[in-house]
Amino acid sequence: MEKVTLADAFASIDERWDPRLAGELNGQAVKLAKAEGEFVWHSHADADELFLVTEGRLRIEFRDRDDAVLEEGELLVVPRGTEHRPVAEPEANILLFEPAGTRNTGDVENELTREDLEQVDD
Amino acid sequence: MEKVTLADAFASIDERWDPRLAGELNGQAVKLAKAEGEFVWHSHADADELFLVTEGRLRIEFRDRDDAVLEEGELLVVPRGTEHRPVAEPEANILLFEPAGTRNTGDVENELTREDLEQVDD
Repeated sequence: MEKVTLADAFASIDERWDPRLAGELNGQAVKLAKAEGEFVWHSHADADELFLVTEGRLRIEFRDRDDAVLEEGELLVVPRGTEHRPVAEPEANILLFEPAGTRNTGDVENELTREDLEQVDD
Repeated sequence: MEKVTLADAFASIDERWDPRLAGELNGQAVKLAKAEGEFVWHSHADADELFLVTEGRLRIEFRDRDDAVLEEGELLVVPRGTEHRPVAEPEANILLFEPAGTRNTGDVENELTREDLEQVDD
């Protein structure tokens, strides 16, 4: 049982769009990612996904509705099955909460796909 | 699908230790609470509980180990079955992640117990 200091944890991450595990509870994972620019369009068939911006700005695009723009201290839950594309403008630090094992690129597998996430340094 | 601005949401809460629902996903709840002073010793038999401090300082006391002191931007997961007592020093804004329906006072029922939480204003 160790606390995580978000500023230190984000400072330890070099890569963009490379989520790290900050904790697991009740079958869910808390992940931290540094974001820059456009991610890939994707959806998660079985996972609702929470985004909380702790620094910067993240726009989340949807196919059938207006974008959501999250500033520092704002959160949004994207329901399962909802196609979305995160775009950091220009950069953002993001905390995600979702079922453990949820793949970052959902139904898409490409060069941005990350599995078997490392634990974050804190 | 509406974003929650934490600052606005906390500003809408008058009571201390009176958690509000900020979202639900995957059977889990995101709750926001304003904390002041001592809460009650309790545990949750079936629920790991995440505390994230967004303002102020929260000390979490345990029976058999040192206190955890969480400042703004720090999080801790308290495993299920772990007796704990949150103490805000002197005040804190707290975001909690835990299974939907988890009772704030766990195995204890007293004047601080809250059930059927209201949705937060945001």
